[in-house]
Amino acid sequence: MKKTLFVLLLSLLVVTAYVHAENGYDLWLRYKKIEDPTYLNLYRKSIAGIHINAISPTLLVAKKELEMGLSGLLGAPIKEVGAQTDNALIAGTPSSSPVIKSFLEKEKIKTGQEGFAIYSQTINNKKLILIAAETDLGVLYGVFHFLKLLQSHQSIQSLSTISIPKIQRRILNHWDNLNRSVERGYAGISIWNWHTLPDYIDKRYIDYARANASIGINGTVLTNVNASSLVLTDPYLEKVKALADVFRPYGIRVYLTAKFSAPVEIGRLKTADPLNPEVIEWWKHLCDKIYKMIPDFGGFLIKANSEGQPGPQGYGRTHADGANMFADILAPHGGIVMWRAFVYDARVQRRGEHFEEGKKDVAGESIASADRFKQAYLEFKPLDGKFKENVLIQVKNGPIDFQPREPFSPLFGAMPNTQLMAEFQITQEYLGQATHLVYQAPLYKECLDADTYAYGRGSTVAKITDGSLKKHKISAIAGVANIGNDINWTGHLFGQANWYAFGRLAWDHTLSSETIAEEWIRQTFGNNPKVLQPIQQIMMASREAAVNYMTPLGLHHIMGTGHHYGPAPWVENAGRADWNPVYYHKADKKGLGFDRTATGSDALSQYAPEVRKQWENMKTCNIEYILWFHHVPWNYTLSTGRSLWDELCFRYYSGADTVKWMQDIWTTVKAYIDEERYNHVRQLLNIQHKEAKWWRNACLLYFQTFSELPIPSHYEAPDKTLEYYKSLRFPHAPGINGNL
Amino acid sequence: MKKTLFVLLLSLLVVTAYVHAENGYDLWLRYKKIEDPTYLNLYRKSIAGIHINAISPTLLVAKKELEMGLSGLLGAPIKEVGAQTDNALIAGTPSSSPVIKSFLEKEKIKTGQEGFAIYSQTINNKKLILIAAETDLGVLYGVFHFLKLLQSHQSIQSLSTISIPKIQRRILNHWDNLNRSVERGYAGISIWNWHTLPDYIDKRYIDYARANASIGINGTVLTNVNASSLVLTDPYLEKVKALADVFRPYGIRVYLTAKFSAPVEIGRLKTADPLNPEVIEWWKHLCDKIYKMIPDFGGFLIKANSEGQPGPQGYGRTHADGANMFADILAPHGGIVMWRAFVYDARVQRRGEHFEEGKKDVAGESIASADRFKQAYLEFKPLDGKFKENVLIQVKNGPIDFQPREPFSPLFGAMPNTQLMAEFQITQEYLGQATHLVYQAPLYKECLDADTYAYGRGSTVAKITDGSLKKHKISAIAGVANIGNDINWTGHLFGQANWYAFGRLAWDHTLSSETIAEEWIRQTFGNNPKVLQPIQQIMMASREAAVNYMTPLGLHHIMGTGHHYGPAPWVENAGRADWNPVYYHKADKKGLGFDRTATGSDALSQYAPEVRKQWENMKTCNIEYILWFHHVPWNYTLSTGRSLWDELCFRYYSGADTVKWMQDIWTTVKAYIDEERYNHVRQLLNIQHKEAKWWRNACLLYFQTFSELPIPSHYEAPDKTLEYYKSLRFPHAPGINGNL
Repeated sequence: MKKTLFVLLLSLLVVTAYVHAENGYDLWLRYKKIEDPTYLNLYRKSIAGIHINAISPTLLVAKKELEMGLSGLLGAPIKEVGAQTDNALIAGTPSSSPVIKSFLEKEKIKTGQEGFAIYSQTINNKKLILIAAETDLGVLYGVFHFLKLLQSHQSIQSLSTISIPKIQRRILNHWDNLNRSVERGYAGISIWNWHTLPDYIDKRYIDYARANASIGINGTVLTNVNASSLVLTDPYLEKVKALADVFRPYGIRVYLTAKFSAPVEIGRLKTADPLNPEVIEWWKHLCDKIYKMIPDFGGFLIKANSEGQPGPQGYGRTHADGANMFADILAPHGGIVMWRAFVYDARVQRRGEHFEEGKKDVAGESIASADRFKQAYLEFKPLDGKFKENVLIQVKNGPIDFQPREPFSPLFGAMPNTQLMAEFQITQEYLGQATHLVYQAPLYKECLDADTYAYGRGSTVAKITDGSLKKHKISAIAGVANIGNDINWTGHLFGQANWYAFGRLAWDHTLSSETIAEEWIRQTFGNNPKVLQPIQQIMMASREAAVNYMTPLGLHHIMGTGHHYGPAPWVENAGRADWNPVYYHKADKKGLGFDRTATGSDALSQYAPEVRKQWENMKTCNIEYILWFHHVPWNYTLSTGRSLWDELCFRYYSGADTVKWMQDIWTTVKAYIDEERYNHVRQLLNIQHKEAKWWRNACLLYFQTFSELPIPSHYEAPDKTLEYYKSLRFPHAPGINGNL
Repeated sequence: MKKTLFVLLLSLLVVTAYVHAENGYDLWLRYKKIEDPTYLNLYRKSIAGIHINAISPTLLVAKKELEMGLSGLLGAPIKEVGAQTDNALIAGTPSSSPVIKSFLEKEKIKTGQEGFAIYSQTINNKKLILIAAETDLGVLYGVFHFLKLLQSHQSIQSLSTISIPKIQRRILNHWDNLNRSVERGYAGISIWNWHTLPDYIDKRYIDYARANASIGINGTVLTNVNASSLVLTDPYLEKVKALADVFRPYGIRVYLTAKFSAPVEIGRLKTADPLNPEVIEWWKHLCDKIYKMIPDFGGFLIKANSEGQPGPQGYGRTHADGANMFADILAPHGGIVMWRAFVYDARVQRRGEHFEEGKKDVAGESIASADRFKQAYLEFKPLDGKFKENVLIQVKNGPIDFQPREPFSPLFGAMPNTQLMAEFQITQEYLGQATHLVYQAPLYKECLDADTYAYGRGSTVAKITDGSLKKHKISAIAGVANIGNDINWTGHLFGQANWYAFGRLAWDHTLSSETIAEEWIRQTFGNNPKVLQPIQQIMMASREAAVNYMTPLGLHHIMGTGHHYGPAPWVENAGRADWNPVYYHKADKKGLGFDRTATGSDALSQYAPEVRKQWENMKTCNIEYILWFHHVPWNYTLSTGRSLWDELCFRYYSGADTVKWMQDIWTTVKAYIDEERYNHVRQLLNIQHKEAKWWRNACLLYFQTFSELPIPSHYEAPDKTLEYYKSLRFPHAPGINGNL
């Protein structure tokens, strides 16, 4: 009888797995039972039970997470045990646990505001695992780290880990509108259901907080940088407060975007001039109200005088005037200002405002007519040292706009007396959106590891961002989220890896892309080497493949107008010169690429001499950036030994071929993962391959009209004409103007 | 050792349940293991295995469903057995199974195109359960019925069921736009991801088809009645084809909305005149193309000359001219035309078109200036008998627009020589949208069971819709879907019950609301009487509660302008007279309500004499409809013994109180259902109660300005002023103009 029941139970497990295919909702926090019996037994033996004195909301969620995680991973409800139990797992702070207190004192371990220590210890002859931190939040981070060890089949025998984040504020930027559309969102609509807030707390809000806390993200800007002032009105602040209340135990602060013209739009003032006392008083009153509701409110992110957004220049003031007004108001509350450096064309910036045209910058050059590459620098460099100490200037990784590959922005290193924070894009606006598998850690790393030489060799973007080079008070980093209400959060399952990678690098920018990929795969797909290795190979190849089939050799911004879906290098009639692909690639009979040396726009002069020197010479310029900085003749021989045209063909073809290879590799994991996720990725790789070929064919046929050279005959010839590719229209491509 | 493993397995089950809370995605097809050991054992004994010869795609999905369902319900993978096995479950058609063939012949059972028979039989001394049908689709429907029996703990001992749908075409209407916004959608965005179609087949498409097939829905109009002609272009038809291919095995035909002006918009013709040969040729060519791609394409749903949509009147033609053009083209393919009767104000209808103003109807009355109640009838009644035999006129259940309660549309019964189909709204545009629990089966039933007396007593709307009264060739029924990409499909979990109820009533309109509720609860929440009874009570009370707290006694269309969220009876400045609540309630110092008797608009003259007679007399008119038809003095004593004002107060208060009662009842199920769904509904009931009081207070304070009578002092006084309620604005209320 027992045996029958046993068999039935066993079969039930199979059935449960069958019915509940994995839809990706659980992200990397799946907590499935450890498959490998060796690890399972080892872990079970090493963890007899948990001991957490949950004296705060954060310790309570840490305890719940540990219970849920261990119960799932070990396949049995985890017990609570006393602190004197052999093989107890004890998590806490000096305030919550005497054991932790004496451990930290004895070992002289400092974990700071957010760090944690995980140690194996023998105390009074009891083997213990300690998750120790000076703060509750550190404990929570330690708990997630510990669960990751188990999910990843790591040893927990002789633990002695101390982990402290290198950057203080690790923030997601949601470009989410109040109508729930998401600018550059490709995963459904906003997870913020403003209509049902504050009364309805979607379970998703909690799972969002868990996911972020698990990778160390501690801030979220809820609203689009192209802002609506409505979010600053009372009914919406109630909704924001509800979210802040949910996120607080997880250590996540809420930030908002502030529309510069809010005092006029919702405050009934006649001006938004940042030096006007009424305006200052209006913002002060608003902030007092916000902090009464949300005591740990993080501050404001502001996009001003860019792409039609209002700003201080509309009143004859500078970015510093604008930022500092907010800074003074937020400082007493502990809030910060993140002021975006992504600005271009003062004329456009002032659209709709009462300001005279044609401002000249200090050097007498009209910023508006400069190479767009240069404009942020031209606007901000003169303001170095003029920002208050709770202001950060938020700089996109590259000088243009989240291209598949960009050189680092010359602003990094150009403002020694200003706190700069890097902004990365997790959502794949220019990287195949949600149908292409593109693992972005290599992109983030490329920027973070780039040496600006600004303060001598080793002045990397990472060290500028983390504040270590100039000993700045506040450090921060931002990632534009790829999160939507799709069941799997990110549209493409592998989009989760980019969210994960951003969080991990924000915590520790020295981690390698490979390591992060491995962590993510182990938690997401399990620890079978037949899954881990192929998927890691796919991920590591994916970004270079995308660069190759979209914008090899330093091409940039040749995507479809507006929606940025697909190739459109031929477009030359967009509203502004620098909205046109032809502005960026400058193809002609002679060659291809944007001359940004002294003979051209001289954008290279914005870099430190060491960088400029390397890149201004076509011979020494990295081949990956060559068309960013040079107009290269079609027959010029590159470092690969191939001519520009042949190299262009080679890269476009090899990019598309790599996707084919990714498809083939993916088939090898079929037997080892669930059918639902396998098919999801399989179908998307089909789309990616189709679109990679579309990119390749369209771009080569177009550039061929200038080079007048043949596509080498050993390549499969394009199967459509250039006219066909030019004729394609996508009026409902997602992520823009009400398309979802 | 075995015992330990056994305990571990047991505990794992607990954990699995813990980690995988129910998020509602599985709808009523949860297939959880039968909880009651008596039933479990009985079912296991009675079903030794299944035998299906899956010789067609439909039989294959039937087999898969049976495998998945039985494996889940019985807690063990179900075996495949031979047809001669004792306790075999055999499903098939005469073509697929000799056993089924001889059974149907012997018993002389006819199941028709879609029906099925489920019988317990002993053949050659073997006990068998037979799911038999003349068609593959009938088998699939029978399989779902059988699984429902098990999910609902019904006996499967002596089965002898024959079930045949009463209406042929049971269709969902999706008001989904190509940008994925959903007009009047409150559950996220469209599940149709047009951007990734046709290459990406979301698992959701398959689960959508399963859910619909499980309740007998056999058609889906993919696109909004406010149509985009873009869906008729080649790239979109490829996407439509991909969906049709997914749905085909499940017996679901795809339909599209056809924008009348498509020949001009995408065909480059100068006219869309339905009598123009070029126009006819254009549509013919389009339909030939569609049927080549989708051989079972269902046909077109058309909204013409209404609310700005183009139509035949723009060319001096009639609705019949327009509909018949499509009918002639579709007829050879077996397609149908569903032509909507929801039309009002010819001037608005012709907006943007080259047509002269001020058309008069046959009776010489200007349709445009008539009581809106009357306009559909005035437009369509004269056209009776003029439509081709594959045209159906799609009539909303009531004369205005999906109000919480409406009398049946007078068109039902007014067109004996025309095939009429009823259109219901499943999405809760006027019923609290996705935050109110309102079970709509009683609303649907109220209309279906209404006696029009058109062809003598018993001429119910149901019998007009199913075609039985006039022996029409084609019968159909439509429900405007409440489906979106929210994880639980419908926003409010109980929205699933309305989808379910529509399908069940479309199949068999004689089912009671109580029966359908019970079916749904058993499958959705399980069979515990402590869950079943309270939830059924809540559902059965919910619609009347909503009528009472929103629009008691026959009030109608007093919702917020545009978005229809919340109360706004005071609005009097909307663009058209009949877009204003004051047009509908006509409150003044004397009384309240719309006089539609002979002394007023005489809309009652559109009904059969028996109906008119009852409703034109204030004494005999049902109290539920009294303000639909009468301007009733404030002090008039109603059948309840209360004055109109006191009854109004009574109903508004009792409506809100019922929601409070629903909240209380809901708490009693807490111990018996999963936490996730419990909290979901609990939070939404809180919102519903808050909003019910908002409705009550706002409406009574407003109507009080006319009645000048006090709210009886035993009621809790409104806690806000009328001015406060009037000041509320909801610029981002969902379901309209790009709000999501």
